[in-house]
Amino acid sequence: MIEKRKEEHIRIAENENVSAFHNYWDDVYLMHEADPEVNYDDIDTGVDFLGKHLGFPMVISSMTGGAEIAKKINYNLATVAEKYQLAMGVGSMRAAIVNRSLSDTYSVINERNVPIKIANIGAPQLVPQGKEAIDEKDIAYIYDLIKADFLAVHFNFLQEMVQPEGDRNAEGVIKRIKELSGSFNIIAKETGSGFSKATAQRLADAGVKAIEVSGLSGTTFAAVEYYRAKNEGNAEKMRIGETFWNWGIPSPASVYYCSDVLPVIGSGGLRNGLDLAKAISLGASLGGFARTLLKDADQSVEAVSRNVEMIEREFKVAMFLTGNKNVYELRKTKKVIGEPLKEWMEV
Amino acid sequence: MIEKRKEEHIRIAENENVSAFHNYWDDVYLMHEADPEVNYDDIDTGVDFLGKHLGFPMVISSMTGGAEIAKKINYNLATVAEKYQLAMGVGSMRAAIVNRSLSDTYSVINERNVPIKIANIGAPQLVPQGKEAIDEKDIAYIYDLIKADFLAVHFNFLQEMVQPEGDRNAEGVIKRIKELSGSFNIIAKETGSGFSKATAQRLADAGVKAIEVSGLSGTTFAAVEYYRAKNEGNAEKMRIGETFWNWGIPSPASVYYCSDVLPVIGSGGLRNGLDLAKAISLGASLGGFARTLLKDADQSVEAVSRNVEMIEREFKVAMFLTGNKNVYELRKTKKVIGEPLKEWMEV
Amino acid sequence: MIEKRKEEHIRIAENENVSAFHNYWDDVYLMHEADPEVNYDDIDTGVDFLGKHLGFPMVISSMTGGAEIAKKINYNLATVAEKYQLAMGVGSMRAAIVNRSLSDTYSVINERNVPIKIANIGAPQLVPQGKEAIDEKDIAYIYDLIKADFLAVHFNFLQEMVQPEGDRNAEGVIKRIKELSGSFNIIAKETGSGFSKATAQRLADAGVKAIEVSGLSGTTFAAVEYYRAKNEGNAEKMRIGETFWNWGIPSPASVYYCSDVLPVIGSGGLRNGLDLAKAISLGASLGGFARTLLKDADQSVEAVSRNVEMIEREFKVAMFLTGNKNVYELRKTKKVIGEPLKEWMEV
Amino acid sequence: MIEKRKEEHIRIAENENVSAFHNYWDDVYLMHEADPEVNYDDIDTGVDFLGKHLGFPMVISSMTGGAEIAKKINYNLATVAEKYQLAMGVGSMRAAIVNRSLSDTYSVINERNVPIKIANIGAPQLVPQGKEAIDEKDIAYIYDLIKADFLAVHFNFLQEMVQPEGDRNAEGVIKRIKELSGSFNIIAKETGSGFSKATAQRLADAGVKAIEVSGLSGTTFAAVEYYRAKNEGNAEKMRIGETFWNWGIPSPASVYYCSDVLPVIGSGGLRNGLDLAKAISLGASLGGFARTLLKDADQSVEAVSRNVEMIEREFKVAMFLTGNKNVYELRKTKKVIGEPLKEWMEV
Ligand SMILES: Cc1cc2nc3c(=O)[nH]c(=O)nc-3n(C[C@H](O)[C@H](O)[C@H](O)COP(=O)(O)O)c2cc1C
Ligand SMILES: Cc1cc2nc3c(=O)[nH]c(=O)nc-3n(C[C@H](O)[C@H](O)[C@H](O)COP(=O)(O)O)c2cc1C
Ligand SMILES: Cc1cc2nc3c(=O)[nH]c(=O)nc-3n(C[C@H](O)[C@H](O)[C@H](O)COP(=O)(O)O)c2cc1C
Ligand SMILES: Cc1cc2nc3c(=O)[nH]c(=O)nc-3n(C[C@H](O)[C@H](O)[C@H](O)COP(=O)(O)O)c2cc1C
Repeated sequence: MIEKRKEEHIRIAENENVSAFHNYWDDVYLMHEADPEVNYDDIDTGVDFLGKHLGFPMVISSMTGGAEIAKKINYNLATVAEKYQLAMGVGSMRAAIVNRSLSDTYSVINERNVPIKIANIGAPQLVPQGKEAIDEKDIAYIYDLIKADFLAVHFNFLQEMVQPEGDRNAEGVIKRIKELSGSFNIIAKETGSGFSKATAQRLADAGVKAIEVSGLSGTTFAAVEYYRAKNEGNAEKMRIGETFWNWGIPSPASVYYCSDVLPVIGSGGLRNGLDLAKAISLGASLGGFARTLLKDADQSVEAVSRNVEMIEREFKVAMFLTGNKNVYELRKTKKVIGEPLKEWMEV
Repeated sequence: MIEKRKEEHIRIAENENVSAFHNYWDDVYLMHEADPEVNYDDIDTGVDFLGKHLGFPMVISSMTGGAEIAKKINYNLATVAEKYQLAMGVGSMRAAIVNRSLSDTYSVINERNVPIKIANIGAPQLVPQGKEAIDEKDIAYIYDLIKADFLAVHFNFLQEMVQPEGDRNAEGVIKRIKELSGSFNIIAKETGSGFSKATAQRLADAGVKAIEVSGLSGTTFAAVEYYRAKNEGNAEKMRIGETFWNWGIPSPASVYYCSDVLPVIGSGGLRNGLDLAKAISLGASLGGFARTLLKDADQSVEAVSRNVEMIEREFKVAMFLTGNKNVYELRKTKKVIGEPLKEWMEV
Repeated sequence: MIEKRKEEHIRIAENENVSAFHNYWDDVYLMHEADPEVNYDDIDTGVDFLGKHLGFPMVISSMTGGAEIAKKINYNLATVAEKYQLAMGVGSMRAAIVNRSLSDTYSVINERNVPIKIANIGAPQLVPQGKEAIDEKDIAYIYDLIKADFLAVHFNFLQEMVQPEGDRNAEGVIKRIKELSGSFNIIAKETGSGFSKATAQRLADAGVKAIEVSGLSGTTFAAVEYYRAKNEGNAEKMRIGETFWNWGIPSPASVYYCSDVLPVIGSGGLRNGLDLAKAISLGASLGGFARTLLKDADQSVEAVSRNVEMIEREFKVAMFLTGNKNVYELRKTKKVIGEPLKEWMEV
Repeated sequence: MIEKRKEEHIRIAENENVSAFHNYWDDVYLMHEADPEVNYDDIDTGVDFLGKHLGFPMVISSMTGGAEIAKKINYNLATVAEKYQLAMGVGSMRAAIVNRSLSDTYSVINERNVPIKIANIGAPQLVPQGKEAIDEKDIAYIYDLIKADFLAVHFNFLQEMVQPEGDRNAEGVIKRIKELSGSFNIIAKETGSGFSKATAQRLADAGVKAIEVSGLSGTTFAAVEYYRAKNEGNAEKMRIGETFWNWGIPSPASVYYCSDVLPVIGSGGLRNGLDLAKAISLGASLGGFARTLLKDADQSVEAVSRNVEMIEREFKVAMFLTGNKNVYELRKTKKVIGEPLKEWMEV
């Protein structure tokens, strides 16, 4: 059942327009440097992220696992993550807990030398939902399964809410996070609606190591569920998907809010290396890409590779054209913020 | 004659686009809480409104009565109001005063156990208009007829003005309101153009208990009368309808202005439970829905019921996703205001 | 030749879209008063303008004369000006100076009892342009011809500039105005580009009695000349018409700038009585309508009359809905200014 | 090879839409002066630019050379530059250095009496790029070749970056500029992305005499290269062209930033004489036009001449309508800045 749903998610994400109406990265402008005084070939795109080194500050955000098709996707992504020295997350690993025969759809990434590996579990699963919460042993299992560096706990309550069958308890999550943060390096991750500054602060206090914002701009699960509902002919669920289609904190605003508090992975709507540079310029340490890689990953290593190579190229070009020799300088580069994003930056 | 006009109003409201060009609720954004720390099932959507308890802060705004078709509509609405424990208004009760044989098209709501019932009369009828003003005895009659908790006095002077045959005297209304406010619990209600803060203050001084803003965003009677004029081939009346189509104070601005002064029912353009949550977040105690329920009410109890269930669900989801356990907390939730609404919030 | 050009102007103004791209009156919002406490029938729309009384603060702005078709138009307009007690201007009277046999195309308005009559001459004609400037005797002739209360000196230098054959000297205009202001009651009038505050001040110092702003929003002569050029197949002139199509100070901004300095006639783009009320609310004493009356005036008294009746009605409705019993109160009514007009109000 | 690429550039610039999505000159509004008190025929459009006199403040920006078609274009442009007494640049002269037989495609402009002649070389060629940097002797050669008054060093790093084969070293440019500024009058020139204030300051410190901003609004080489890539079927290069299509500092903002620091040539997106007047009003000394002249220059002297005559006319009309008798006054004329440009003016 999970497996079937996962595949449906992938097909919808590949074929339908599941993006927010406005991509707020379009409201961020970097200040051009006509005379960059940089040799492109000397630009160092490398970064250290909490002790590990990456080729450039890109994360392949958590997408899949727990289905046959996912195995291929994860393998292709891992191959490219190794090639470009990227961080990579796998999709929610609940399936591997429930059904260990699906474990290899995740652990396939161990066949490649991925510098930062991120396990993934939903925040809703950390607390009882009718059924019992996932226990620490299970988490240790998935963490070890991929030899993870981090555990992304994804906060996808919008998605849960737009499904009638979704998990509906969020109480106690922070307590569980606090407990788990002794044993695991936790990244608090959204899936399309972003984190506010206050929430980032609360998560930092609970021992979280980093935030992946995944704000409003790109994939929204209200849209994904809208299309699932459409396939099912479920008018009620279609309506709630429409109502919450554009719900959330714009990605760049969320990066800006949270990066005062914790290391941040800027994500949600990144389409290219210029968007990545914008994320860094607003304070992110890394930037995460999900849906924009999906179709390529479903196709071949070469397809993803070409895409990632372009992202790296565009990112390096943005560094060059702003006259920044390394990623740490880029974080302080000048920028201009346009409407409608501006309203969010001023609260 | 009234009866025929009432039916025409309903048909137009059901079938034509009688909304303002811009729905200003689209300019209100609630701050998402990624980790709400709430159990959805524990969320208390209940509210007390001036001594009465509601299942969630929804009012079925005054729409109809005085015609056969209205009886069915009111019956269907009342059935749903009982089911979800909502407040409900009936349409203008002048018809019942003029022709008591029409009384049951209103009193039909007594067949259901509606927690808050709101009688309805036009402010223009409180003062002489060529014909005499309605006297207190008549008001007592309609109040008792539905065993009302409140009397909504609707200020629909825009509508009067766009009809050549409309009532044109507004002098003395406030004096009548002051007199009546000793005997009846009065809600001052607009029908699509909203109240300013100064007006709310004057009405509060006159003894009014609450304001239903019904501002600019949804149904505008300039549009309704435009279509009536079109049917009649009356070019002059069509023109005045067009000229004043977008007249009024945007609903969210009016909620914001008035809620410092009196308990407020936010209405005018609410389409779903998220809009309702936005109204509450700006200071409203309750939110009112009219036209969005009309077609369903004309059809069946089941249709309205499904719609209201979705509104409740969306409302509760918005509470959940902003991390608010009860409606009183929701009123203090963070929000962002976009253009063009922003200009109205700054005056 | 003038005669032919005049007719061409009229045909173009009737049949082509010769308006600025944006009508800035759409950026002005009046604050609705739900409980106006006014009897519509008691509203006094009358105003005194520099010693004369008008039925409501409307001017029929200068449009025509000097051609057979103009005679009918002026007659029709004057008939309506008498009926509604409006001020009325005739078009540029140069034709009557050059060729006195055309005088009756202007003086036809004396057949009606128009409360304020405004003679009209171009500012460019007050100074030498190759040919000699018009002398005071000629001005006295046209002033007396229509028994004028005012002399509108129209500043139409944009129009002159977009025609290759246009007058190109503006030097000495202010000196002539100063001289003439001893003998005539002068209104400085634009024809679609508005006055700045500094210019209004200079004109006030020169003895001008009032300003008719005729700003950017409605008719622009860059467009009129564009269409003339198109008819002639003159690509150069078409281009300059396009380049300056949206040149000028938005009408509401100009009203706002100038009304600190002199009595103001708000004009340029007024379409209805609501626009008129907006002009008054920004400080204008009267509001002027031109092109919106042209087609009706070319047709019949009845057609213009119907239009003016609607304008009056809409104006009175706007007064009513803002709770203003007379025009002087309306000038102080609350308003909200939106983008893009706002940028102009803040300089 | 260079020759073929040059011709391709020209064809694309003539036939495809290679402009930024938004022309920011549309966000600049000049304050109209209804009574300009100027005689159009007395307006002095002349300017002195660093010791040389021009008929009006227009530069024909650097476009071409090094190909047969370029010779004709340069000849036609020079003929018009003489006629209207304009400054004129030739395109990048690298071709003449590499292959002296191409020299006459540049020196053809010596057949006309052009008041200010601007030689042109790319900043990337001033530093080693695998191959050696251009030496001072070569620069002296091209400078003398056209008897240049200035050497425009063009900073086109965006263009280099969107081509896989582009030059990628920018290190040492400023040092070379400093050295060369002893022997040549250098203008630092962009080609579509503009200069920031800080960069202008650095260039001033290195001895540069003026800045030609060529900001974002008109031609963008990301677009030009996008179309070349499209012709080649090179998807990667198409993508990077799209990603950086709107990269850069809006032309009017760049004029505003830099004119505090150095004499400025406002360029990038100028379409007519009104845009030129806007550039001057923001502080530019001259304004540069490129692509808008290209097709005409490719056709005939008459075609360019007609275009330039219109530009001059429109410019003079703008001076007249703002009441400015000479170009120095125009620089202080009042203006209003609209969105989205405004965000850039406030940083
Ligand atoms: C098909 C698909 C599946 C996803 N599955 C997960 C998941 O299992 N766990 C998770 O944390 N995020 C998941 N995400 C969310 C992404 O990691 C990311 O936060 C979100 O899609 C926004 O980024 P984008 O706009 O680049 O797609 C998924 C996204 C997509 C498109
Ligand atoms: C068909 C129809 C009839 C209405 N009749 C009344 C009425 O009799 N009395 C009243 O106070 N408001 C009446 N209203 C106004 C509504 O109560 C409400 O204020 C207004 O429609 C704005 O809300 P909406 O945008 O949700 O429709 C009516 C609205 C509609 C659509
Ligand atoms: C056909 C036509 C002829 C005009 N002729 C004159 C004129 O002779 N003198 C003058 O002062 N204004 C003249 N105007 C300008 C108008 O008085 C007015 O200032 C301008 O049209 C802007 O108002 P509108 O947008 O309501 O048309 C004319 C306008 C039109 C449409
Ligand atoms: C076909 C073409 C060729 C160009 N070649 C050069 C060049 O060789 N050197 C240079 O400095 N700028 C060159 N430019 C850039 C222009 O000088 C100018 O900076 C830019 O096009 C922006 O102005 P525009 O929007 O008016 O076209 C070229 C522009 C075009 C359209």
